[in-house]
Amino acid sequence: MKAVLITIGDEILSGNTVDTNSNFIASQLKNIGISVAQIFTVSDEIETIKKTLKSAFEIGNIVITTGGLGPTKDDKTKTAFAEFFNDDLILDEQTFEHLKKLMIKRKREHLLEINKNQAVVLSKAHIFQNENGTAPCQMVEKNERIAICLPGVPYEVKPLINDKIIPYLKDKLSLNHIAARIISVVDFPESLLSLTIEEWELSLPANIALSYLPVGNRIKLRLTAVGSDLQEIENQLNDEVEKLKPLIGEKVISWDGNDIQEILKEVLLQTKLTLSVAESCTGGELSRLITSVSGSSRYFLGGIIPYDYHKKIEILGVSEQTILKKTVVSEEVAQEMSLGCQKLFKTDIALSTTGVAGPNSDDFNNEIGTVFYSIRVNDFEKANRLYLPHFERNDFANFVSQRVLQDLVEILVKQKV
Amino acid sequence: MKAVLITIGDEILSGNTVDTNSNFIASQLKNIGISVAQIFTVSDEIETIKKTLKSAFEIGNIVITTGGLGPTKDDKTKTAFAEFFNDDLILDEQTFEHLKKLMIKRKREHLLEINKNQAVVLSKAHIFQNENGTAPCQMVEKNERIAICLPGVPYEVKPLINDKIIPYLKDKLSLNHIAARIISVVDFPESLLSLTIEEWELSLPANIALSYLPVGNRIKLRLTAVGSDLQEIENQLNDEVEKLKPLIGEKVISWDGNDIQEILKEVLLQTKLTLSVAESCTGGELSRLITSVSGSSRYFLGGIIPYDYHKKIEILGVSEQTILKKTVVSEEVAQEMSLGCQKLFKTDIALSTTGVAGPNSDDFNNEIGTVFYSIRVNDFEKANRLYLPHFERNDFANFVSQRVLQDLVEILVKQKV
Repeated sequence: MKAVLITIGDEILSGNTVDTNSNFIASQLKNIGISVAQIFTVSDEIETIKKTLKSAFEIGNIVITTGGLGPTKDDKTKTAFAEFFNDDLILDEQTFEHLKKLMIKRKREHLLEINKNQAVVLSKAHIFQNENGTAPCQMVEKNERIAICLPGVPYEVKPLINDKIIPYLKDKLSLNHIAARIISVVDFPESLLSLTIEEWELSLPANIALSYLPVGNRIKLRLTAVGSDLQEIENQLNDEVEKLKPLIGEKVISWDGNDIQEILKEVLLQTKLTLSVAESCTGGELSRLITSVSGSSRYFLGGIIPYDYHKKIEILGVSEQTILKKTVVSEEVAQEMSLGCQKLFKTDIALSTTGVAGPNSDDFNNEIGTVFYSIRVNDFEKANRLYLPHFERNDFANFVSQRVLQDLVEILVKQKV
Repeated sequence: MKAVLITIGDEILSGNTVDTNSNFIASQLKNIGISVAQIFTVSDEIETIKKTLKSAFEIGNIVITTGGLGPTKDDKTKTAFAEFFNDDLILDEQTFEHLKKLMIKRKREHLLEINKNQAVVLSKAHIFQNENGTAPCQMVEKNERIAICLPGVPYEVKPLINDKIIPYLKDKLSLNHIAARIISVVDFPESLLSLTIEEWELSLPANIALSYLPVGNRIKLRLTAVGSDLQEIENQLNDEVEKLKPLIGEKVISWDGNDIQEILKEVLLQTKLTLSVAESCTGGELSRLITSVSGSSRYFLGGIIPYDYHKKIEILGVSEQTILKKTVVSEEVAQEMSLGCQKLFKTDIALSTTGVAGPNSDDFNNEIGTVFYSIRVNDFEKANRLYLPHFERNDFANFVSQRVLQDLVEILVKQKV
């Protein structure tokens, strides 16, 4: 079963907004065995939307659009749908009632008249009411084809997909099962890894696909199996993973896990170790990554961002002498930061980062892209230096944070402590 | 001048990776007056890539692809380009030399043989060497059309675009200028705003486009002007902004700025106020947003994430009594957190957040989605409550953080202090 996504909106094409909806929808569809064959991102123009609907239905029989359903003049999706499906737009009483309730809940009754147009829908559409915004989700079914239009705001899209669209599609279509494993390999260049597992890769059954997803110096090997019997494909995957173990086992830090922060969670819950962080050049990103995982409060006790270097001295007890001698971007400062952090939060593990994210140099004339980090697990300590001069500052913070967590996982998994 | 982007990679279609390249490339092209007319996201299949190249050139005459240039079997872009342009793939000595140097710099000489294939390029392509990865950028020009293929890794794409592609295109093409203003409106529902400025909107010159971009409860009005004379279109925009002032001036917190953290930077540099944050439910996101701006160290002195509630007591001096009486998710705790934060970091401004991000409830049985935040500017303090039950946890942290910064800007701009 193939789906095609259409992202509608000039704000995506102009580079103003990153399209995160497609990613979310694709991953949710994949879970129920529907693969996304293509994504079109197009402008808010009736003719373009109609033409794209046509192209999309030549590729797949489920088409999901996001965006272009707002009450303003630049939103055209509804009209394009009506013309494409030869349907009329009519005021739907039930949708209007829903809108009324929403407006009352938001204390915006005075806006009802202006928003009334949001209750105008395709006469033949099935309506999924939107609990978080004024534009309802509409679905048209015609000749074994399903077209669904969703609003563009991510926090409106997510519950509509999870609570309404996915259950509906699951119920309606009898689908093949999909199962996947993501194996995380470190310290193994892609080309060498590819060579090492070449023979195994060529011997994979036809219903199992392999892909390489590099993230920093970690490579995620994704094995995806498709089949009518879930247990059978799960067994197949287990067999293939067993065959991989003697080939690359030494380089693997996780046999099933996508995000490094999720892998870390498993390891920390198992080892019952607590964690805190002191981050400077990562500016909050390391904590954000860790706390992006639900349940992280069971092991993450807190973080400190001593951005100004005096705060490293005052709050973390980093020695001023060390800073003067080695500068703030140094292995020694990273080490003193993780030590101070371990004491401040009273945790088993403490991580620290200090570096120059750029684009400007720091007060000590350290080279842009230089970073030191320290990982402390009880009495064990390991520091490392990275040099990433070409990174834009947000990518820099994310790359460094992922790497620090990855090294921590490697230390814990391989019991290097 | 119109461009079309093609994102190639099963990892995007499967929902494994968010495509951030398109957003980056589109915004950079826009700056030199090239608009992206459409984005295709397709799988790593030769026939699909060829077909999409054909469709793309029917829409625009610059086509830029990202992805599918790795050394592994699942990468097919190069072959598709060769077939589409009837060209041969040959080993390019200069590219091979560049690759050698890169491998030596990375201390991976032993991998040269395996990566040699990365120096195989289209015989008629112009090569832009990649300083951050093994796949070079290739450009084919034929019959007034330009096709460029880039690797997929964002930190390889960015410098290639900024340092090589953009200067090349700017030099080669004589382009129309583009100028834009982004006006940030708060406390003004989109439908009401639309009605208020309707007459003005209808009177806009044909070369100026308006779009609405809602971000939380802020609406960004984007005015884009196109023309051959930069000064003239800048003047046009200024005139239109002047006309808007009497209509919506009271609701505007910025007359030109995209991200709230950039707007905040301007305000803080002007007012010379220093800032610190104490964040709980936002878990680092608030600090990350603030520090995502280059130069933020001039006003942001630091942050603390007292994730475990004991840390709020120990480090920020929140009273245990308050927590027991009001629970940790309360206006009172938010207020004590911002006060403790202001003292800890010795800053003029301190922000705090405390809430339940979900999907699980906290130890105090507070409702998921509840959040309190406090904004302290010297002796002034303002606390607020949000209720966002439908947000996924990362969106929750981002939404709350943006809102807190937006409220702070509003307070500073409207001199409510």
